[in-house]
Amino acid sequence: MRTSIATVCLSGTLEEKMLACAKAGFDGIEIFEQDLTVSPMSPEEVKALAHRLGLTLDLFQPFRDFEGVEEEILLANLRRAEAKFQLMQRLGMDLMLLCSNVGTATIDDDKLFAEQIRRLADVAARYGVRIAYEALAWGKYVDTYQHSWEIVKLVDRENVGLCIDSFHILSRGDDPAQIARIPGEKIFFVQLADAPVLTMDILSWSRHYRVFPGEGGFELDAFLGHLVRSGYSGIVSLEIFNDVFRQSNVELTAVDGLRSLIWLQARTAALLGSDAQDYPLELDALPGAQQALGFDFAEIRTEDPELIAGMLAQLGFSFLGQHRRKPVQLWCAGNARIIVNSQRSRGVTATVSGLGVQVPDPVAGRARATDLLAKPVLRHHTRDEQELAGFRAPDATEVFFGSVAGTSLWETEFGAHRQAPEEAQRGGITGIDHINLAQPWQAFDESVLFYTSVLNLQARPGTEVPSPMGLVRSQVLRTEDGCVRLALNIVPKGLEAAIESHHEYPEHVALHTDDVVALARRAQRAGMEFLQVPANYYEDLAARFSIDERSLATLKELNLLYDRDEHGEFLHFYTATVGNMFFEVLERRDGYDGYGAPNAPVRLAAQFEHNRFDRH
Amino acid sequence: MRTSIATVCLSGTLEEKMLACAKAGFDGIEIFEQDLTVSPMSPEEVKALAHRLGLTLDLFQPFRDFEGVEEEILLANLRRAEAKFQLMQRLGMDLMLLCSNVGTATIDDDKLFAEQIRRLADVAARYGVRIAYEALAWGKYVDTYQHSWEIVKLVDRENVGLCIDSFHILSRGDDPAQIARIPGEKIFFVQLADAPVLTMDILSWSRHYRVFPGEGGFELDAFLGHLVRSGYSGIVSLEIFNDVFRQSNVELTAVDGLRSLIWLQARTAALLGSDAQDYPLELDALPGAQQALGFDFAEIRTEDPELIAGMLAQLGFSFLGQHRRKPVQLWCAGNARIIVNSQRSRGVTATVSGLGVQVPDPVAGRARATDLLAKPVLRHHTRDEQELAGFRAPDATEVFFGSVAGTSLWETEFGAHRQAPEEAQRGGITGIDHINLAQPWQAFDESVLFYTSVLNLQARPGTEVPSPMGLVRSQVLRTEDGCVRLALNIVPKGLEAAIESHHEYPEHVALHTDDVVALARRAQRAGMEFLQVPANYYEDLAARFSIDERSLATLKELNLLYDRDEHGEFLHFYTATVGNMFFEVLERRDGYDGYGAPNAPVRLAAQFEHNRFDRH
Repeated sequence: MRTSIATVCLSGTLEEKMLACAKAGFDGIEIFEQDLTVSPMSPEEVKALAHRLGLTLDLFQPFRDFEGVEEEILLANLRRAEAKFQLMQRLGMDLMLLCSNVGTATIDDDKLFAEQIRRLADVAARYGVRIAYEALAWGKYVDTYQHSWEIVKLVDRENVGLCIDSFHILSRGDDPAQIARIPGEKIFFVQLADAPVLTMDILSWSRHYRVFPGEGGFELDAFLGHLVRSGYSGIVSLEIFNDVFRQSNVELTAVDGLRSLIWLQARTAALLGSDAQDYPLELDALPGAQQALGFDFAEIRTEDPELIAGMLAQLGFSFLGQHRRKPVQLWCAGNARIIVNSQRSRGVTATVSGLGVQVPDPVAGRARATDLLAKPVLRHHTRDEQELAGFRAPDATEVFFGSVAGTSLWETEFGAHRQAPEEAQRGGITGIDHINLAQPWQAFDESVLFYTSVLNLQARPGTEVPSPMGLVRSQVLRTEDGCVRLALNIVPKGLEAAIESHHEYPEHVALHTDDVVALARRAQRAGMEFLQVPANYYEDLAARFSIDERSLATLKELNLLYDRDEHGEFLHFYTATVGNMFFEVLERRDGYDGYGAPNAPVRLAAQFEHNRFDRH
Repeated sequence: MRTSIATVCLSGTLEEKMLACAKAGFDGIEIFEQDLTVSPMSPEEVKALAHRLGLTLDLFQPFRDFEGVEEEILLANLRRAEAKFQLMQRLGMDLMLLCSNVGTATIDDDKLFAEQIRRLADVAARYGVRIAYEALAWGKYVDTYQHSWEIVKLVDRENVGLCIDSFHILSRGDDPAQIARIPGEKIFFVQLADAPVLTMDILSWSRHYRVFPGEGGFELDAFLGHLVRSGYSGIVSLEIFNDVFRQSNVELTAVDGLRSLIWLQARTAALLGSDAQDYPLELDALPGAQQALGFDFAEIRTEDPELIAGMLAQLGFSFLGQHRRKPVQLWCAGNARIIVNSQRSRGVTATVSGLGVQVPDPVAGRARATDLLAKPVLRHHTRDEQELAGFRAPDATEVFFGSVAGTSLWETEFGAHRQAPEEAQRGGITGIDHINLAQPWQAFDESVLFYTSVLNLQARPGTEVPSPMGLVRSQVLRTEDGCVRLALNIVPKGLEAAIESHHEYPEHVALHTDDVVALARRAQRAGMEFLQVPANYYEDLAARFSIDERSLATLKELNLLYDRDEHGEFLHFYTATVGNMFFEVLERRDGYDGYGAPNAPVRLAAQFEHNRFDRH
């Protein structure tokens, strides 16, 4: 499938956008006219630069407010169009997007629309230009693809076809299935955009909130399936108006965009199954999908490994060994492995720097991640060390693929020959439950797509958590069975004096146990510093739930937090924050499947209180 | 009028919020329960702190999802309520907000609602608590104030009344006029919120976008007028859920909030006229409103006054003199006065640091600004110097009041005895047209209120301008006659590597002339460095407007930009940026009243191009 992207998706100058698209690996670009108008590059330079970069110039857009007007305005519009056809000739371009009239149309008459577009087509033909007519969702008279298709049929010119944009169809709740009935050769261009499910006017939604496929709530695999069945064999492009993308790093956004099309093709191919072969649009497969089996490890980078070691010991972790070659320690408890790494740690008190996920076939998983443009992490390994396939996520977390069997291999690099599984002690750590990762504001959507595609996780609906620093947007990505769960938190820009960067918003590793009360008591005796929960919280708890007084006293004594859902109960505590991280220990009773969301504001406020002396 | 504010409006801990509210000058606060729950302060401490600060604790809120439920749930709700009444007793509070049921109501029956609320009232009475019932706009069965009033009448208890919240009424487009018919003593509490005009689901709009009165699109003076006429004599409070306020400096937000109530009272008093005296709610007047007569001066702070002097000379300004005591120069052209100040300028190449506005009575203007909590600028003046009344705007711009007559006084401090008005030379600068000020993201709404209230300007609808760094939100504030115009631009967070702070987004002073072509030509000959306009712009201009070739060639030669509206034409050019500022020179023909908005993207892109070598 040939891929393209509209220059309006990206930040920077036209030249910077073109360089970034080529570097990411797009086949071509759409020239959004305003990007050219404000550029010092001549059309000839743009053409030559595209040629040098190997980019095709696929669509010149938008041409607006043409049809449905009085004759005098039409003549002016034809003159305006001809100037643009001349410009396209200098660019070496042959496809123009015509949007259905939004502003100037005064006559609602399909035959007139067709007649006027036919006149445009005749001028266009003289310049070898084809016209792709698109129904905008807020078009004055033409606002559905079915209607624009009726008009294209009435126009009946070889050089007039359709542009299909997923946003204009799905935002209205229109059924895209009839796209499959349009002859593919009359669809001249396809633009895909996803969007979060929002209830607002469509124009604002479209202009600010579009995201790349896979980052929103539209079923774009089914949508692309309908296009495949139409016999469409052209370019599939991205046209994303997004306030964040427009101000983010242009190269990262371009990679994010292409990743979305690679991922979408694979999902669409999977949806179509063997039928896909019957159609001309080639969907590249993405073999080697891995079902995550659990966390392999969490990695903490610290310049003070003794500090982390002390906390781990308080939580009941055992030191398994020092790496044979590197200043890296391995700590274990139950199935939870924590790597304490003091490399590249200058100035880093402690931070969650990486995580490993067990998959059936790490080699295949790595190949697939590479296909998804994941940026590899370079790690040296000697001949007798296990090779770890790692990638850098958009939030800078290092993500590694391992296997269940492989774990025993790399454990030996720590000189640790694991004993036969210890007698399971009640109230010990049993494993890693989830890892909570802070997201810089400009990386959130990209991270959602990265983790869902590369690690094959599902995005759950997001929530917002009030904190003294503002609302924290939070989204959980997880496997269906919950063996791997990530919580992504986008951090408010915050009190400027208090928060310099997202690194001051702590991340954490949540560990599960089968008896958090016993574990908390042991940790308390071992001198563990808990995050202090305010007394008011326990009074509110008593008002909300009927909890017997003795249980409430225990919760309060141990700084435990509590939640309940329709399945069961949830008890958890937080350690004090060290540097940029802390630990959570939790117990899920009777199938409670959440994360104690009602307690998150308590945690954030307590951490904010804890830092107050740093703030003032 | 007694003023209050809900703690949920503000960032920080409960203690920080209380300190900020007291410092700003509020009479009391609403305790948003979650702020207390997450606080380490005991209820007794909160009570004592409020007492020490002189704050009343006016409303405990919210109590949710109470009425319209089955008996079993009701009993649990009564238990939950009683725990909160006990808590309120410890806080010394006597008024609780009851929101209409959103989540758990299953029985739609007004009589049942009333009966259940009556049972709540009876428990509340034992604790001396009164209940203020509020219809949420998204309440399951009760979503209008008329409906909640019907239920309060059915309840028929002395300790049950209404809470009126402007957002829940105006967001639905409900008519607030009937509020005047409710007996004022049955309105127990009033919450005011403004909001920008958005088309989105009311819940999201309410939870993220509320702003302080005067910062949005609701007619809150009329709304408060209806409340006055009801005979209400209680507290008027602010309940603003705003994503930005929640993460901004708590003290500034509290001042912003109180300013909004001071301003709203004055507008409401003006609306009611002498009728206001007939009602018990006392509206504080805000005497001394000044109608701006024009710009007195623009002030540029620079460590390199020669650089600015050179540019001013190129534009045709004359040096009038050096201040008798300070390293400050005065330059004039027509009615435009530019002060070039090299005090406090270390590291500042050039920035727009202040502006003066001529008003009929600067002393009264100053008193009114002080009433509006404007922060004064301390400037020393000797006995023979004119005293300038200045204030620091939220964006740090220094704003001064002067008078037409006063100007000739302070001009003499520069040793300049102005000659008789020069023979008006065609093509000279005639005055300051507008000043464009960059706004940090957290100051935008506050700035809109500050400038509209303190300078008595009107806010025009905002626009968004695409730029290589993201969308720039822009709003014009002006006098009706246009003699004073400010354009506020909120700056995208931007390419992180490119933009460290809003200070790298340039501000500008726009000067008007009666012949921009002649002026540009003279400036060109004088060696002025113009912002370079790309050739593509002129080709697009030719396609959009019919402009004769010779005029087009002139525009292109002089780097002039062009726009046209239904009245007339607009021609303008920009100088190169120095430091953090530049000049614009413009000519308005035949009553053109805009700012060349279609050209703003060209300007922003050209400036971005200009900086490219700094960026890489």
